Amino acid sequence: MIERKNLLFVISAPSGTGKTTVSGKILKEIDGLIPSVSHTTRPRREGEIDGKDYYFISGEEFKRKIDANEFVEWNEYNGNYYGSSFENIEKAEKLGKDLLFIIEVNGAGNIRKRHNNGIYIFILPPSINILRERLVHRGAESGEAIERRIKIAGKEIQHYTEYDYVIINNEIDETAKQVFSIISAARCRKNNLIMNSEESAK
Amino acid sequence: MIERKNLLFVISAPSGTGKTTVSGKILKEIDGLIPSVSHTTRPRREGEIDGKDYYFISGEEFKRKIDANEFVEWNEYNGNYYGSSFENIEKAEKLGKDLLFIIEVNGAGNIRKRHNNGIYIFILPPSINILRERLVHRGAESGEAIERRIKIAGKEIQHYTEYDYVIINNEIDETAKQVFSIISAARCRKNNLIMNSEESAK
Repeated sequence: MIERKNLLFVISAPSGTGKTTVSGKILKEIDGLIPSVSHTTRPRREGEIDGKDYYFISGEEFKRKIDANEFVEWNEYNGNYYGSSFENIEKAEKLGKDLLFIIEVNGAGNIRKRHNNGIYIFILPPSINILRERLVHRGAESGEAIERRIKIAGKEIQHYTEYDYVIINNEIDETAKQVFSIISAARCRKNNLIMNSEESAK
Repeated sequence: MIERKNLLFVISAPSGTGKTTVSGKILKEIDGLIPSVSHTTRPRREGEIDGKDYYFISGEEFKRKIDANEFVEWNEYNGNYYGSSFENIEKAEKLGKDLLFIIEVNGAGNIRKRHNNGIYIFILPPSINILRERLVHRGAESGEAIERRIKIAGKEIQHYTEYDYVIINNEIDETAKQVFSIISAARCRKNNLIMNSEESAK
């Protein structure tokens, strides 16, 4: 009889690297994996669902949660607050599910401080130039905003050394497959198993 | 620009657990992975090809190779000698390929002593009873020989703690997929990459 620890996967990637698409594919294909839903003070965009994409809360409520120590990590980005509640982790554990965080490098760093068993994955754009092209192609932001993101991306990329796995996102399906493999492998990593060798020898 | 270290994968499993079938599938599906071909003094079975399944050599030649320190590991099993030459590893490195060892627990232990970067995978039968059924079903050996294998298997299973990954072979395709994932994940593990962050930021 083999049991398995609940695992915590953390994916970081600069904006425009495809982490949202990749995680969407992963969550659809992999059983027993649920996304961590962040709280944010950022205004809800069209199509986003409260409680699914984010918990959209006011700045006031966010501050109350910080004071009550309800966040495993929180951060300010582009003038908005983002945070992951401890409740997310507890919920996944109760359900016996693995938890997937899609989070920027500082948030990942804060989770790392509190969890020894997290598996950290960094998705890199093939190059900064290709990243810029993708952001321009997406057409969601001004040139100035894109250059700001590029500058942040350049800084974020330096953090790849803090991660367990590094994937270059040349092709989105290939990247999704690699993340799939990492999760699949982690699930049969001995350190993540709770085994009783007497049992298995019967 | 990301380069990758050549990797060395080691799979062990008791007889009848399906390691030969699994490794056949893996070698067929995964690019850049070649099998380590062992030397043996065991008589060639029908269908086996010299230089592909094994290098079939005499006991005398085997002893000469031991004395010349040509084996990274060697062992005696059921009255026959088996060994893996250093030449196998050097050949894979020259070719820029990853190397796959299918080897019993003692051989794996000896390789582990000489390689820090090996990835060790143990495939378990669902249970000893199911293993016995499979060996009987295979029909290659007497009941006595099967019981001897079962006894050896029981001892081998205790070594799973020395491995990085543990897979229960409930279903051969599922097991092959898991090995595939482990290899795939290892290939993007940061510790196995040689990265130049300056380059990747360009």
